[in-house]
Amino acid sequence: MIELALIGIGTGNPDHLTAQAVQAINGADLILLPRKGSTKSDLVDLRRAICEQVLTRPVRIVEFDMPVRETGGDYARAVDDWHNAIAAAWRAEITMHLPVGGRLAMLVWGDPSLYDSTLRIAEKLKVGGVAMQVRVVPGITSIQLLTAAHAIPLNPLAGAVTITTGRILRAHGWPAGADTIVVMLDSGCAFEVLESVGITIWWGAYLGMAHEALEQGALADAGPRIAVRRAELRVRHGWIMDVYLMRREQNNGA
Amino acid sequence: MIELALIGIGTGNPDHLTAQAVQAINGADLILLPRKGSTKSDLVDLRRAICEQVLTRPVRIVEFDMPVRETGGDYARAVDDWHNAIAAAWRAEITMHLPVGGRLAMLVWGDPSLYDSTLRIAEKLKVGGVAMQVRVVPGITSIQLLTAAHAIPLNPLAGAVTITTGRILRAHGWPAGADTIVVMLDSGCAFEVLESVGITIWWGAYLGMAHEALEQGALADAGPRIAVRRAELRVRHGWIMDVYLMRREQNNGA
Repeated sequence: MIELALIGIGTGNPDHLTAQAVQAINGADLILLPRKGSTKSDLVDLRRAICEQVLTRPVRIVEFDMPVRETGGDYARAVDDWHNAIAAAWRAEITMHLPVGGRLAMLVWGDPSLYDSTLRIAEKLKVGGVAMQVRVVPGITSIQLLTAAHAIPLNPLAGAVTITTGRILRAHGWPAGADTIVVMLDSGCAFEVLESVGITIWWGAYLGMAHEALEQGALADAGPRIAVRRAELRVRHGWIMDVYLMRREQNNGA
Repeated sequence: MIELALIGIGTGNPDHLTAQAVQAINGADLILLPRKGSTKSDLVDLRRAICEQVLTRPVRIVEFDMPVRETGGDYARAVDDWHNAIAAAWRAEITMHLPVGGRLAMLVWGDPSLYDSTLRIAEKLKVGGVAMQVRVVPGITSIQLLTAAHAIPLNPLAGAVTITTGRILRAHGWPAGADTIVVMLDSGCAFEVLESVGITIWWGAYLGMAHEALEQGALADAGPRIAVRRAELRVRHGWIMDVYLMRREQNNGA
């Protein structure tokens, strides 16, 4: 039996870890760290640094190469194929390093529930016949770090919030009935598709890390500023992870 | 100058606290704990227990009586009056206990960004002339504890999520375009207004606490079960805090 702990670690600052996360990391027999290619190598380094900082007993840490997602073609199919490939990679590591079972820990950026595929991949392993119990340890998400950095509430008073993706925003525009939206997984600047009148944006990149970057203001002014800064930062660091919240003055729906 | 730290503490389990939260609690000159009347007295006790568990130096802890919100009449007006009364209560405590300024800490259930009024009350004090810098320390929310307890993702694959309230769900029904919704601040069982066909619910109460309660299943079956259990638990403990996630099979919107 594999006892898999999926541990949310926040976004790279070890002080984001909860006591529960530290206990789960220390309780593992094996920690698997995904290696995602050289452009994001500081992310692997950060996970390794977090382990080194919080481990109070020797735990085996193994890095494995993350399969690369095919681009183009059908999106859902490409993601499913990719998840199958990741599940196969996990299975190979488990067979090699935990042949008679044990406690496996995976460190998940942010929180395992939010735009992360680890739970779905674990499900594929279970369906594929690996005896596995999954336990989730929550972590601070980039949304919480964004609102904390700007010292703003997520929801309008007594109101609703929609969390969506850059892809959906580009395809469908501002969600019907929403006053506040959070956009994640935006590989470009999807806010550029919106009519900017009446919209305020709060943006953050590398949240909680040493080179955290913040911008906020009316979308008409802040949007172009964010686009330039994002491009510069991406070149400088070789990668970028960002998230933003937008509020609209008028409620045109529910 | 008051340096106000709003510290997210999760939902009562001290192991939910981040290292950053523990540091912020220990860095305070004064911790203010709101006392909300006898029915929720275990919540005050929990905050006090958390302080006692994580403090490594003596910090003054002061309890104050939270003003009670008027019921009936205009909701937004009643909430605003209530926030003004809370701001006045804070101000009295600050004048008494930090007359020349200092570091004030407030422990916020969950995360200060999510359905919490503390940021808005701090803003009222600033507008009212109190020199104040606000810093937010993120905490684990009940949404993350719900998805962790059920070991489920929050968002559908590459999809959006709407976080809403019981009041909005009752007034407007299922949000347009949403496949997944999270309902918070539901004083009853607002899911009862929905056509249950095709909807699955994951529910949790007292999340992360010793008497955590979980239910999940098709809404047609699980909904009535949750209504009964919720009523029983509320009587037994004198209060209840719960949250639930629902997914709908068909996407009838964006």
